[in-house]
Amino acid sequence: MKVVKFGGSSLASGEQFKKVARIVFSDKDRRIVVVSAPGKRSAEDIKTTDLLISLAKEVVGGKEYKGALELVIRRFADIVEELDLGIELLTGIENRLIELINMYRYDEDRLLDALKSSGENQNAKLVAAYFNKRGEEAHYVSPKEAGLLVTDAPGNARILPEAYEQLTKLRDRSGILVIPGFFGYSKVGNIVTFPRGGSDITGSIVAAGVEADLYENFTDVSSIYSVNPTLVENPHEMKEITYKEMRELSYSGFSVFHDEALQPVVNKKIPVRIKNTNDPDALGTKIVSDRVQEGFPVVGIASDEGFCSINLTKYLMNRQVGFGRHLLEILEREEISFEHTPSGIDNMSVIVRSHHLENGKEERILHRIRTELDVEDVDVERNLAMVMVVGEGMAKTVGVASRATTALSNAGVNIKMINQGSSEVSMMFGVDADKADLAVQSLYYAYFTPVNQ
Amino acid sequence: MKVVKFGGSSLASGEQFKKVARIVFSDKDRRIVVVSAPGKRSAEDIKTTDLLISLAKEVVGGKEYKGALELVIRRFADIVEELDLGIELLTGIENRLIELINMYRYDEDRLLDALKSSGENQNAKLVAAYFNKRGEEAHYVSPKEAGLLVTDAPGNARILPEAYEQLTKLRDRSGILVIPGFFGYSKVGNIVTFPRGGSDITGSIVAAGVEADLYENFTDVSSIYSVNPTLVENPHEMKEITYKEMRELSYSGFSVFHDEALQPVVNKKIPVRIKNTNDPDALGTKIVSDRVQEGFPVVGIASDEGFCSINLTKYLMNRQVGFGRHLLEILEREEISFEHTPSGIDNMSVIVRSHHLENGKEERILHRIRTELDVEDVDVERNLAMVMVVGEGMAKTVGVASRATTALSNAGVNIKMINQGSSEVSMMFGVDADKADLAVQSLYYAYFTPVNQ
Repeated sequence: MKVVKFGGSSLASGEQFKKVARIVFSDKDRRIVVVSAPGKRSAEDIKTTDLLISLAKEVVGGKEYKGALELVIRRFADIVEELDLGIELLTGIENRLIELINMYRYDEDRLLDALKSSGENQNAKLVAAYFNKRGEEAHYVSPKEAGLLVTDAPGNARILPEAYEQLTKLRDRSGILVIPGFFGYSKVGNIVTFPRGGSDITGSIVAAGVEADLYENFTDVSSIYSVNPTLVENPHEMKEITYKEMRELSYSGFSVFHDEALQPVVNKKIPVRIKNTNDPDALGTKIVSDRVQEGFPVVGIASDEGFCSINLTKYLMNRQVGFGRHLLEILEREEISFEHTPSGIDNMSVIVRSHHLENGKEERILHRIRTELDVEDVDVERNLAMVMVVGEGMAKTVGVASRATTALSNAGVNIKMINQGSSEVSMMFGVDADKADLAVQSLYYAYFTPVNQ
Repeated sequence: MKVVKFGGSSLASGEQFKKVARIVFSDKDRRIVVVSAPGKRSAEDIKTTDLLISLAKEVVGGKEYKGALELVIRRFADIVEELDLGIELLTGIENRLIELINMYRYDEDRLLDALKSSGENQNAKLVAAYFNKRGEEAHYVSPKEAGLLVTDAPGNARILPEAYEQLTKLRDRSGILVIPGFFGYSKVGNIVTFPRGGSDITGSIVAAGVEADLYENFTDVSSIYSVNPTLVENPHEMKEITYKEMRELSYSGFSVFHDEALQPVVNKKIPVRIKNTNDPDALGTKIVSDRVQEGFPVVGIASDEGFCSINLTKYLMNRQVGFGRHLLEILEREEISFEHTPSGIDNMSVIVRSHHLENGKEERILHRIRTELDVEDVDVERNLAMVMVVGEGMAKTVGVASRATTALSNAGVNIKMINQGSSEVSMMFGVDADKADLAVQSLYYAYFTPVNQ
């Protein structure tokens, strides 16, 4: 059994619906389909989800929202008309949206979740209707019916462990099941959306729940590239990548598949295949638990900006048992998670995302460091980018670090920090943010031109 | 005013005493002399301190100790006779040793401190006597008289802040003051020795106390080399090095000047000059607060063995605020100081000295990590060496890391860990212990052959 998820661009128009049907019908194992809301049809188009967010704002602002509502309906109407699905579907969508508006108009957070999720929810109904029209048995299954039980914080749903027991039962149902992505239901019955990469998370949870053989994630690229394709020409396409490698890359700036969406399938070791709705014969990229190492172990280069480094100096620091713990405790008190803590004999740096130091947190942290840790010096270095070289097995291969540092040196990029641990699948280089693209380019050519051409 | 310290080999014989006198008398600023116990005269010789430790063991074991005592007296007698200092000095030494034995024979720790420190203490009396014989005004000053007040734990003395007020007064005394190194007196009157690099510490404390212009440390090498001289031929001699650089190097295996001995002079920014008693005209190596950067910033390469790495893996680790703090707290509970904590997205390593994991500590730590941190995987990697490339300004120089990693790669050394922080004066490479020497050699030739020849 395969769980197949289609992203917004794969379901943006009637034309795209037809491609989706062709893909699903071509493989009898594609039994569960998870769908996003209709995405952009062109660069200037607006995503349905964004139309719904605008609608929610008008309602909350007490404004006349008929125009905004009409724009949402129009999006669905285009698909319904193009595929000739029957006008009563549209009436159903409009009635449900008005119902949600009336139910939640005085509760902004709940209204936003309810309207935002309508894009996926109503689109799933259209997909099921279209599959039926094409003569296939297909059923819309709401997250409530499927058993997608989540926590209750608006916009920040987390799956509850008991959900998986319910989801298993989907295996026994007949026909193609079409499930909207992006949201679940809390125990008290609220619609709650996932925080990021929403529909990917639903697909991953459902795949784990039914213990699928494969989770196919259809989007608009034929594979994951080893580097941001806006930075190099004809970037290398990954055939296979491990969960760990994917997670490092997506954490560090890759946006193809959100790292949080991986967690449910990782536990069950269910492979994920990224495929292209517009080129379904392309093999795509497979995300797996283990892969055979071939050639040089580096699979990808990523970078992410918006970091800063809190640097401390204190003579005989590392004789002082408890110093590091105390420092991290100061950050924990402000609910800050740190990225790395490179250290010398008498100094230690903590790298955090810059936004964590806003709203007075920086002042409070520096004050506590100065008064409680009795340091000689503390300062905050800003505008740092973290560039990651990712690949399992790097720690066992001679020469990986050498290629990286030589490439950066030749490009004139100063390495401010290096972090590589013994069980690592990645090597981190801290550089000035304005050198990040140059760093990524030079690292890409260091590993990929000579090896993979 | 200069404080001058002479090590054991500089005072091993009458011949060496003459060199010391020549050095001290040649510069009127050399007003305070700190001395070690007589060291080895040849490779087969035994240091006075070791003879005294043997004596202490005999006494504690209830054995006949006359023979051991005689060996100690003989060492001093050789010097007294060679310099014709007068037999009454020897009688004084013997009487004092017997007095200490009778005072402390039932308190092993105190006895050991009292006897060990006698090497320095009695040698200082001989030096003062010899200076007087040569017609110079010189006074033996006991640590008690000088005001070297220390904490009371046997073998682990730490200077007390109030000592510095007393030490200042030494400035006003006339003649050359000869002070024994290695020990101080606690408030209750016990003789307590310093833990490591004992006489260097005394010299440094006295230099800080009298606010000397220079602290000259005479030993048996003409300068500090940039690398362990047993590993490369004609190693580069350092002319100038900063406190921070010296501390990184001595922490990481350089034994010329113990890092703890630097602390007192660092605070007062008193420069230290390492010089050779056997070649006093050689300039030696100056340890200073700041130095002018010339050429490539690397000043030395060091390595130290006996480390292991505790490696943890946990999916979504770095989303978990408090994880790092909790891990370090587990180590702190066992009173373990850590060296480095390289980390990735889902993994973290803590590098500690292997001996910290003995006596059941490893089992307790791993148990707590498994039960409290809910990790997927934890293991301990052993037999690691930490190789340090040291030099202030490295973090600002393009290409430093590149040279290092390329050299290691060319030598076939696998880099298991790298740690370099933003305010660093060093770059750390974790390698297998059996590759440490090869790593140091290849790094040395990477920085020093092309630059300093």
